[in-house]
Amino acid sequence: MGLMGLGTVGSGVMQIIEENQRHLQQQIGCPIEVSRVLVRDMKKKRDIVTPHDKLTTNPADIINDPDIHLIVEVIGGVELTKEYLLQAIENGKHIVTANKNLMGTYGVEILRKAKEHGCDVFYEASVGGGIPIIRPLVESFAADRVHKIMGIVNGTTNFILSKLSKDSETFEVVLEEAQKLGYAESDPTDDIEGIDSAYKISILGSLGFQTNLTISDVCSQGISNITKRDVWYGKKLDCEIKLLAIAERDANGISLSVEPVMIHQNHPLASVNGVNNAICVYSDAVGETIFYGQGAGSLPTAHSVVGDIVAVAKNMNQGVSGRSLPETHEEKRIKSDDEIYEKYFILIEANNGNSSISNIISSLDGIFDTIECFDKSIDENACNEIMIKTQLISKSNLNKVLRKIEELSVVEKVASVYRMEGISA
Amino acid sequence: MGLMGLGTVGSGVMQIIEENQRHLQQQIGCPIEVSRVLVRDMKKKRDIVTPHDKLTTNPADIINDPDIHLIVEVIGGVELTKEYLLQAIENGKHIVTANKNLMGTYGVEILRKAKEHGCDVFYEASVGGGIPIIRPLVESFAADRVHKIMGIVNGTTNFILSKLSKDSETFEVVLEEAQKLGYAESDPTDDIEGIDSAYKISILGSLGFQTNLTISDVCSQGISNITKRDVWYGKKLDCEIKLLAIAERDANGISLSVEPVMIHQNHPLASVNGVNNAICVYSDAVGETIFYGQGAGSLPTAHSVVGDIVAVAKNMNQGVSGRSLPETHEEKRIKSDDEIYEKYFILIEANNGNSSISNIISSLDGIFDTIECFDKSIDENACNEIMIKTQLISKSNLNKVLRKIEELSVVEKVASVYRMEGISA
Repeated sequence: MGLMGLGTVGSGVMQIIEENQRHLQQQIGCPIEVSRVLVRDMKKKRDIVTPHDKLTTNPADIINDPDIHLIVEVIGGVELTKEYLLQAIENGKHIVTANKNLMGTYGVEILRKAKEHGCDVFYEASVGGGIPIIRPLVESFAADRVHKIMGIVNGTTNFILSKLSKDSETFEVVLEEAQKLGYAESDPTDDIEGIDSAYKISILGSLGFQTNLTISDVCSQGISNITKRDVWYGKKLDCEIKLLAIAERDANGISLSVEPVMIHQNHPLASVNGVNNAICVYSDAVGETIFYGQGAGSLPTAHSVVGDIVAVAKNMNQGVSGRSLPETHEEKRIKSDDEIYEKYFILIEANNGNSSISNIISSLDGIFDTIECFDKSIDENACNEIMIKTQLISKSNLNKVLRKIEELSVVEKVASVYRMEGISA
Repeated sequence: MGLMGLGTVGSGVMQIIEENQRHLQQQIGCPIEVSRVLVRDMKKKRDIVTPHDKLTTNPADIINDPDIHLIVEVIGGVELTKEYLLQAIENGKHIVTANKNLMGTYGVEILRKAKEHGCDVFYEASVGGGIPIIRPLVESFAADRVHKIMGIVNGTTNFILSKLSKDSETFEVVLEEAQKLGYAESDPTDDIEGIDSAYKISILGSLGFQTNLTISDVCSQGISNITKRDVWYGKKLDCEIKLLAIAERDANGISLSVEPVMIHQNHPLASVNGVNNAICVYSDAVGETIFYGQGAGSLPTAHSVVGDIVAVAKNMNQGVSGRSLPETHEEKRIKSDDEIYEKYFILIEANNGNSSISNIISSLDGIFDTIECFDKSIDENACNEIMIKTQLISKSNLNKVLRKIEELSVVEKVASVYRMEGISA
């Protein structure tokens, strides 16, 4: 095989192959030989000892090598990497990748090309790190109908939110700590803004609903605006704030979202802490199934990659490559904001105490479930906070109501809005 | 296909096939046709409408029908059922079964015969009901080395223990309630005494450790002796009592057990309540992975069966039947009691208050971690309870120490002994 990339995951792949060669050989029937490794810098010092003549900086040395049948791609990137892999598939090579950005953008195109050329493309490591979720979704739910997938699929943001929930520090302080610990990158945008999670939920949604979903179908929002006050109100409602990636399907269509959600503490996702990931799958026959584990890290992710390598090798031995690619035969219909109904938490800063409630209520068009006023007038800002829990309302109706509230003279501002989950009817 | 058994799971299988025929056909390429159904009583009234001419009371009508390529076995039973299935395999038929007792007893023999005849034998539904655990263990952990599997795999006992933990009722009262709710059978022995869990952990251990383990390798103990007092002491130690099925492997060998365990409340298994199941898999690369969901019930279990039917059908289409059977190439070495080290909770009834502690301590050979005396002399029984948490000790050493304690004149009796899990060192 050829390995493209010798960073965190690539090194882990090399380590697992070396350490478990006997065990792997027993399953495949022959040893796994890494014949070529693509690196950016030939001279870089590495923990993994790789014979120098196996290293190359030229992707073509792997893509066009007729002796390489399987390419493991862990270089990341989207546009150029797509070209490499499409070319590799045209050359008849099987692909194992951990690249969620690639699969969440061009998954359809890559899988179609793979089908044409009878090649396998496996990407278990792209979501949930070491947690088996892609293969179970494709194989184990084959007889069932999945209607919702909801998960914590980004360890960085979950680490930050867990800290915010427990400690007294602010978002900025906790982010800095996460960076020091190596849990957040120096540019944390992709994690913090929910982009990483959006790629992942588009992949999970595609598999669960057997259709072609990409990141452009995901409505996503990050966690950088979450305040300690929001966390406090969450606790008042027995909720934790978690960045949830959610894919839902009903008779009217599909909705995909990534957003910070107030989730009731009785829901299993509320107690998933630190860098761990967990994915809940809701299906007609089975009900709720949860997959939990380490969502990132060199070895967990590399383990998923090597598991895929074993699957490719077995398929090659049996002559059935390219036949177990995920199905995408279902119609794709993304719901509009008029069709997506959720419950929401709304926090309003008002300037007129309890008396402002009646004004606000009249703007709510009867959509609220409970409304409560917290008098903060003893504070230096003579301002009151009004907390609203809504009934199930459409997203477009929510936005209409929020605009109406903001126009009220008694209202300083709408401070926060969170979708709520795990709240019984 | 032929369906053997039209009880709870069998009816669920029929229902899922009928309701999802289009979805299933898209995956397999042809519809699933149930051509023969084995029942015990032709005249019994059923919710599932099955044409009368498809029903039979004679197993041979299915086993020897040359037009049936796949047999789904959900009749239960061990000896006779084994004969049926071995005969079916000799006739070239693939098998899907939910029968843990059968696979936990004769799994090796059945799989060997299947390999000889190029037949598939799948049994996802035998453990964890609707939770995908068999296939992930075989496929997703292929690149990793599993060293421990620990789970709650019996819903009946978990329902009872959850109730015992929350309510004031005794074991007998809760068992009766479970029977009324249909969660426990009229003869609950298999569940209560840990036999059901023992079959399941022998199956999971075999798959995780790639060797042939059967129920006779499992050291099992039930929950019928658990008292409210034990639950109370558990809570004092921040523990819940759960019936855990545990398979462990290290360089010295394998140990398999089913027993009530005091597990720390921070461990995810401690908060699995009601009839739910959860299985933790510990492996070298990935660390802890958890699979959680509905462990029983008609539809969840039937969903796993139909998932296996789809897998058999796909393999038939691709001509690779019998090639993905689990591997059993690893040496089987079951540890002796000298080699199994655990931490234990011991509760002693003493008759001499604090002064008896020194006598007991001298019997403990330095194996205790903490020892605490609870003075109950204000009770009508002038008796004291002494609670001991041990260090890691071997099972044989534990038994030796327990005998020594029992011989002390200050000791009324050793009231309870529990293995402890989830306690940090």
